[in-house]
Amino acid sequence: MSDHGLSYRDAGVDIDAAQRAMEGIAGMLRATRTPGTLSDLGSFGGLFRVPEGFSSPVLVASTDGVGTKLKIAFLANRHDTIGEDLVNHCVNDILVQGAVPLFFLDYIGLGRLQPGVVESIVSGVARGCIANGCALLGGETAEMPDFYAAGEYDVAGTIVGIVNEGSILDGRAVRPGDAIIALGSDGLHTNGYSLARRIVFGELGLSVDDVFPEESGSVADVLLRRHRSYLRPIRPHLTEGVIHGLAHITGGGLVDNVPRILPPGTAARFDRKSWELPALFRVLQQAGRVEDLEMFRAFNMGIGMTVVVDAASADSLVREFTEAGENAWIAGEIVAGDQDVLFS
Amino acid sequence: MSDHGLSYRDAGVDIDAAQRAMEGIAGMLRATRTPGTLSDLGSFGGLFRVPEGFSSPVLVASTDGVGTKLKIAFLANRHDTIGEDLVNHCVNDILVQGAVPLFFLDYIGLGRLQPGVVESIVSGVARGCIANGCALLGGETAEMPDFYAAGEYDVAGTIVGIVNEGSILDGRAVRPGDAIIALGSDGLHTNGYSLARRIVFGELGLSVDDVFPEESGSVADVLLRRHRSYLRPIRPHLTEGVIHGLAHITGGGLVDNVPRILPPGTAARFDRKSWELPALFRVLQQAGRVEDLEMFRAFNMGIGMTVVVDAASADSLVREFTEAGENAWIAGEIVAGDQDVLFS
Repeated sequence: MSDHGLSYRDAGVDIDAAQRAMEGIAGMLRATRTPGTLSDLGSFGGLFRVPEGFSSPVLVASTDGVGTKLKIAFLANRHDTIGEDLVNHCVNDILVQGAVPLFFLDYIGLGRLQPGVVESIVSGVARGCIANGCALLGGETAEMPDFYAAGEYDVAGTIVGIVNEGSILDGRAVRPGDAIIALGSDGLHTNGYSLARRIVFGELGLSVDDVFPEESGSVADVLLRRHRSYLRPIRPHLTEGVIHGLAHITGGGLVDNVPRILPPGTAARFDRKSWELPALFRVLQQAGRVEDLEMFRAFNMGIGMTVVVDAASADSLVREFTEAGENAWIAGEIVAGDQDVLFS
Repeated sequence: MSDHGLSYRDAGVDIDAAQRAMEGIAGMLRATRTPGTLSDLGSFGGLFRVPEGFSSPVLVASTDGVGTKLKIAFLANRHDTIGEDLVNHCVNDILVQGAVPLFFLDYIGLGRLQPGVVESIVSGVARGCIANGCALLGGETAEMPDFYAAGEYDVAGTIVGIVNEGSILDGRAVRPGDAIIALGSDGLHTNGYSLARRIVFGELGLSVDDVFPEESGSVADVLLRRHRSYLRPIRPHLTEGVIHGLAHITGGGLVDNVPRILPPGTAARFDRKSWELPALFRVLQQAGRVEDLEMFRAFNMGIGMTVVVDAASADSLVREFTEAGENAWIAGEIVAGDQDVLFS
């Protein structure tokens, strides 16, 4: 290379470093292989055999990010958990349609390759994939100089799962009298971080290393709690017909997500006294002086998934979910109404 | 809402604006529907029926971004072409394994929702999907205050396609004596932009509205030329057995991409005199005083796809590609060697 000429590396892109990072994560990807996985790292695209045993197989796909929860990861310099957030969020998004995951692909955009950081991120993605029986089939790490701030990055992920056409859940079976089972969340999951950061770092003036008020653990510990996957407890019941609808409580909270599975003529009524608001949400609401409805739109308020079931099955399902390690309870019921969410 | 309390909107996130943008793009998504598409916008995940007629269906998936080509879109304030870049890049990435596209999902991360911009971006994605017969099944637009610079964003996309297991292309059929057909690129496609920007805006001191030296059109016109999809010309030949290997010339150029399909004991020799370097690359090389090998790693150098075929079929295929509107020529041959790329 000439002393005076420009190279790709001069422009901030280091293909060799990218190659090294890729080798570092190759082992992690291999650990996520499932029987359908046909390709190895380095293919242009990942190959996955359509599983047999589905009479009318339908693919269910979803793309999502982690949002500004990433800022907490940057501040705390902990990069190995957000990959799990990403995978679990996506797993839940297709689970609510009755699908089980097949494979996942991740995208990481960053300013300059810091090989340890990328490997940390991918280790979380791989851990999430393994826990959900999902192959990490590929991904892209894009080095974009002058694009992301130093030490910052964005991540997105895409999941593809499968369901038999006759087992697709879309809420059409939901009817008045059904019970709503809530499955507890672990912290904020991946929603409401812009507001939460403003309250925690602004109003409360805390740093990531401070103890979070009324919680056990630092601000980083509490705000980086992982988005929970509900695949394990729900999967055994997907084809039984007992589940009439599932809503994953993400951006928009209970208020915006539950109506997505309510047929015309129905509404969801939640009994606010059926659960105690986790300290985290009480602290945020008080410190930010946030209105109730705003809280229920910005945050999950302790509920990560709602399961609408036949009332007769509710108690036994709560018991099964509890035995499977979930914080589960009957949080409300389906009533006649206008496809909205009521609180009593 | 209380006068003093914080709302999600105060923290920079406007769920209603997101809702409006979503409605704006709903029509575009619908226009991309294909027979397999089962879901409409608003589902948690997109639904797509596995097509029939494949004895051993294998899904091929790939995730990619547009890289710092986005910076040109920002500077030129043109946001409706990069979606096509994104789709076409992904289409080519699975095409080289013999797969045809089924569906696509996009991710847009941005600082603050500018509804017109998001709709522009998605219009390009939708146009790319329609041109490739691919359903835009879903996506995510993530508003991330304090994350992306004002007016900037990142985009990534994931494609899922399908191929019969027996028709997977992986280069194992490539053998010495095969001809290498080159299909011409349209500009830089999506690679080498960090170096190109440094040369064009730094060394040459041009702005996006200046005329690009030796080219017809402005710097923006030339640098935003769309990544070309090679699906249409190649698709008719995918299952004929005449194509021994395909390499999509992306990051790493001919030097790094062609070896990905070379079996042990083979090498690819390109005849530099078989094509004239497009003016764009000559200008970049001269102004940046970039070494030859560096040019061939950073840029596609006028070749967007290489098609390795039986030598006996090469001439007729070149004719067919040409009739289909491609700039196609025999650019080299497979020789005995060490899985590398040679130039003569």
